[in-house]
Amino acid sequence: MVSVEWRNGVVRFIDQTKLPHEEVYVETSDYRVVGEAIRKLQIRGAPAIGVAAAYGLVLVAHASSVTTMQELSEEFYSAINYFSQTRPTAVNLFGALERVRRTFDLNARAEIPDIRRYLLNEAKMMQEEDADACRKIGEFGAGLIQIPSSILTHCNTGALATTGSGTAQSVITTAAKQGNVLRVFADETRPLFQGSRLTAWELLRAGIDVTVITDGTAGLLMQNREVDLVIVGADRIAANGDTANKIGTYVLAVLARQHGVPFYVAAPTTTIDFKSRNGRNIPIEERDPRDVTHIGNLRIAAEGVGVFAPAFDVTPNEFIHGIVTEVGVLRPPFVKSIAALRTDGGAPDGNQPAVPRGQRA
Amino acid sequence: MVSVEWRNGVVRFIDQTKLPHEEVYVETSDYRVVGEAIRKLQIRGAPAIGVAAAYGLVLVAHASSVTTMQELSEEFYSAINYFSQTRPTAVNLFGALERVRRTFDLNARAEIPDIRRYLLNEAKMMQEEDADACRKIGEFGAGLIQIPSSILTHCNTGALATTGSGTAQSVITTAAKQGNVLRVFADETRPLFQGSRLTAWELLRAGIDVTVITDGTAGLLMQNREVDLVIVGADRIAANGDTANKIGTYVLAVLARQHGVPFYVAAPTTTIDFKSRNGRNIPIEERDPRDVTHIGNLRIAAEGVGVFAPAFDVTPNEFIHGIVTEVGVLRPPFVKSIAALRTDGGAPDGNQPAVPRGQRA
Repeated sequence: MVSVEWRNGVVRFIDQTKLPHEEVYVETSDYRVVGEAIRKLQIRGAPAIGVAAAYGLVLVAHASSVTTMQELSEEFYSAINYFSQTRPTAVNLFGALERVRRTFDLNARAEIPDIRRYLLNEAKMMQEEDADACRKIGEFGAGLIQIPSSILTHCNTGALATTGSGTAQSVITTAAKQGNVLRVFADETRPLFQGSRLTAWELLRAGIDVTVITDGTAGLLMQNREVDLVIVGADRIAANGDTANKIGTYVLAVLARQHGVPFYVAAPTTTIDFKSRNGRNIPIEERDPRDVTHIGNLRIAAEGVGVFAPAFDVTPNEFIHGIVTEVGVLRPPFVKSIAALRTDGGAPDGNQPAVPRGQRA
Repeated sequence: MVSVEWRNGVVRFIDQTKLPHEEVYVETSDYRVVGEAIRKLQIRGAPAIGVAAAYGLVLVAHASSVTTMQELSEEFYSAINYFSQTRPTAVNLFGALERVRRTFDLNARAEIPDIRRYLLNEAKMMQEEDADACRKIGEFGAGLIQIPSSILTHCNTGALATTGSGTAQSVITTAAKQGNVLRVFADETRPLFQGSRLTAWELLRAGIDVTVITDGTAGLLMQNREVDLVIVGADRIAANGDTANKIGTYVLAVLARQHGVPFYVAAPTTTIDFKSRNGRNIPIEERDPRDVTHIGNLRIAAEGVGVFAPAFDVTPNEFIHGIVTEVGVLRPPFVKSIAALRTDGGAPDGNQPAVPRGQRA
């Protein structure tokens, strides 16, 4: 299963809002269908969102009937603007848009059929890089788990959230192959149940022992010494290591510190926002109050009640023992270990490479 | 609205599983209907459970067709055994059963019609004492809130959870009348949504500004300095102040400490279990996994996943700034302040008074 991919001239993705009960794949040549899928969380997970947006921009060029680059450029920039407003927090989205934009601009004098090919190559390369990053994250992260362990995770960070084997979940599945996963506790992750719906589904398919808990249960588990390690994904990591991730992540970080349990973040370097100095600069999306008041069409909450429904919280860097990336496990002080990424060539200018990679070969 | 009461020879209670969408009252002369209501959480909240069980025992005596005290005693003790197995954590249940049992035993030579009257008087007195305790808890607790404040609470501790104005919620409504409640944040309280269903409903009816959040959102709120005080109820308080309450309560306590926010428990002294030296002795009920995997009949979680569904957690005494009771605000060290209750005459032998109060006058 691949969460999102290019197939025979269309974008094909699995509708994650219907999982785990229905496996529905959508194929579209309309970039707005991709954009709406991101907005509605049919496609979700920071790395998957990035790749989906890149393919969305490819669709713009492929579906357009214009004949001049000037006209195509207008449509293309309008689509970038459209995608940039689908979701505010996951920085992979903006990194992906920027990367495809550069490919477009660098080839402003090319013919439209060539542009289509260049853009598609770039997006496919992003998908491959993401899948490769997932594998490497799994390997580096599994190195942290030397003995059979019980692992607590939050939200979904698997194949669905990426275009590879996942981030935190790739660490879990890799460690499991090495015989070092006793059990996974998956927070159900309110309000949208990505843990009980998606993570549970994926881990069951992988043959890993997974137990779902409500988000308020982690404290009791840690009191009972049933958690050896917490590992979560990220939607945006600031330059100092402060990490925005699904609402409730910070709660786990505080509990982990209280109980001396290591707390790790796993994410590709495309999730690092070198321009956000710290977590206070990260915009936090608020979702529809209905996500909290209703389950499907069933109203749960009392009629008329106010709701505060942020999708993410920010875990300050001081709570994080390490950030597992495709280039290794970053350690505190993160200001230094993250800054080193920019000069070491791993990611020359963060998620905005100076030269689009599709043009290097 | 009274959560549970005696009315014209039957027990009448509101079915809390149907709230807030339907206000359904059940009237029954069958004690097993009361027991099942406790088991299924149609009646819930530690003080309400206690009073309901007491009325349940009254029903046994009233509905019985036996003619000798020997026969009635058998039915009565069998019913005590039945009620004692409905829910394990709320100590008010066991205290209430014990109190009605003593009234029964002290009057073992009375006529059956007299016994019926004695038991009913005792149960009614328990209801009145509970309502009185709620008022006093509200007054003592409101004294802690001297300036307009934002208050975070968990689960439901209102009129529904008691036979009066509530415990933690009585503090909130009393403080609101004094102009000192800016806003209440109510944890939705998974898995059964007592916060978004019941607390939101009650506070809206009381005209108090209430905002529902998912259980994972409290950390972000505290980071944003939006919580001045946390106050929760209790299902059982050990002799050292360790407090069992709805799952997720301990999480709030850890977050409150991390952010320097005062954390209070509010409960009548009937919730104190003098025989449990500390929280490790408190049995923690596990609920049906279906509560986590399903909402109503709608399956949420992936098919086949394991679930861990404890109904309560225990907050160690060191996290608690004060326990608001009907005799005042107990302060640390709780071993001393709680022990003082036993010798001061407030509750001679905890929830097992040496002389049943119904017999004193």
